[in-house]
Amino acid sequence: MSTVGESYLVGLIGDGITTSLTPPMHEKEGREHGLLYLYRPVDVAALGFEGQAAHDEAPQLMEYGRRLGFNAFNVTHPFKQTIMEHLDEVDEDARNLGAVNTVVFEDGRSVGHNTDYSGYITGLKNTLADPDLGSVVQLGAGGAGSAVAYALLRAGAGQLTLIDLDLERATARAADLQEQFPDQRVTARPHAELQDALATATGFAHCTPVGMHTHPGIPVDAAWLRPELWVSDVVYLPVETELVVAARAAGCQVVDGGTMAVGQALDAFGLMTGLSADPERVRAHFLELVAAKQG
Amino acid sequence: MSTVGESYLVGLIGDGITTSLTPPMHEKEGREHGLLYLYRPVDVAALGFEGQAAHDEAPQLMEYGRRLGFNAFNVTHPFKQTIMEHLDEVDEDARNLGAVNTVVFEDGRSVGHNTDYSGYITGLKNTLADPDLGSVVQLGAGGAGSAVAYALLRAGAGQLTLIDLDLERATARAADLQEQFPDQRVTARPHAELQDALATATGFAHCTPVGMHTHPGIPVDAAWLRPELWVSDVVYLPVETELVVAARAAGCQVVDGGTMAVGQALDAFGLMTGLSADPERVRAHFLELVAAKQG
Repeated sequence: MSTVGESYLVGLIGDGITTSLTPPMHEKEGREHGLLYLYRPVDVAALGFEGQAAHDEAPQLMEYGRRLGFNAFNVTHPFKQTIMEHLDEVDEDARNLGAVNTVVFEDGRSVGHNTDYSGYITGLKNTLADPDLGSVVQLGAGGAGSAVAYALLRAGAGQLTLIDLDLERATARAADLQEQFPDQRVTARPHAELQDALATATGFAHCTPVGMHTHPGIPVDAAWLRPELWVSDVVYLPVETELVVAARAAGCQVVDGGTMAVGQALDAFGLMTGLSADPERVRAHFLELVAAKQG
Repeated sequence: MSTVGESYLVGLIGDGITTSLTPPMHEKEGREHGLLYLYRPVDVAALGFEGQAAHDEAPQLMEYGRRLGFNAFNVTHPFKQTIMEHLDEVDEDARNLGAVNTVVFEDGRSVGHNTDYSGYITGLKNTLADPDLGSVVQLGAGGAGSAVAYALLRAGAGQLTLIDLDLERATARAADLQEQFPDQRVTARPHAELQDALATATGFAHCTPVGMHTHPGIPVDAAWLRPELWVSDVVYLPVETELVVAARAAGCQVVDGGTMAVGQALDAFGLMTGLSADPERVRAHFLELVAAKQG
């Protein structure tokens, strides 16, 4: 006899997410654990809500989800801040980040977490044995970039250099992070200094859309990559971006964008079920899903 | 890859339904068909809504269920009329009955059905080869009674005699039904004439709560039962009511209350999935669930 305790109903609230890979990743991992696990994408734009109406609707969807027996939600663009204001509790990291991407209902209370940042760490540590976090250069200080920067500092980066075409954005983000991590060093530098910054870095985290199938290209000159530098990419469509291919050719240790996407799902699955998702199994399924999407 | 088309998310909206047997019946039958089938009870009273607030909330729950990816709902007491007013379409039998217990979302449109009445017919026909519907006496003209009376006439009952302690209710219901089924004969008689009515009947449909574990007893004198009379009961907790036991002892053909409960679920499952639920398998599971509940 299946009851709420033995089955899981999860949703993803966001815009333009009807083809998200997260629902099938969770459903398959749930099935592997013998759970009755159903994960529904809830596309607010497809429901006809735009602008402020969409931001009013997202918390309503979450609240009605609770009433209708959902156990948890993932939340994505553009509702990660909106939803945070409507929760009973937000964990410290999500509060510091100012963004929630995972909501779990515990005894009727909604608790917010952020597995974008934790998933990056999970992915990094599942892929590289002992990445040198002494001096990391990060390109891109937008939404994904904020989570990655927080993750790098949370994982112990000694020096983090934020670079963005929008220097003001990088500077503001660096100042916020410096305040949150006073014992580490966070600076912003202009985009023109990217080559110089990379010359002395131990790691390079790429957090812009360059390299996506819709934005082809490579965000750095391949000649700037050295074998001593580890390189991570947030882009995962395709997984083999020009950057990933070039970094591997240059002898760098590489963390592809699938790693963060998978790490995010692993951590969310854990928060939602209390069970440990299998990293290799989920990664293999993720790669199948990406291949099917591109085929 | 599981998508909305291959998985089913269903809910039951009602009051006091957290221990309903319908969700596990559906989930198990869905699993038997290889579906990812999740069925959530949504207890409006347990959510803290009472009176008019509950009647305002039920359609909201249904609408948000649609937005959150539910495929269908069952609806039960006290919302079968309320919900009907908020649907895009209601099938003819549900409209005639004035009650909807099943809502299916088809291409975003909500369509209402009633499987209380159809489930009674399904159960009757799955149990008795060829029940004589020439002259049927029905005791109880409340909610369940309305569905059963409609079912009996829809199945071709020549004469239907409605008896209720509340003669006015029986009379009003009989007049409505007579109008809907002008070629058959529907009358109301006082409760004091139950014995007389049974003396010439071909079938007896019992539709009051008498015999439930919370209302023990038998609604007729066992001596009034004859082998020529088929007897049906709507009470299913326990399945072996005093009436069922007495009727079997008297040599009657018997349709127990589980039959209607199972028939309702069979028909709802069919409407929700387009697949045929297995009557014997669902019946066996239902009896297990009842036994577990009583154990």
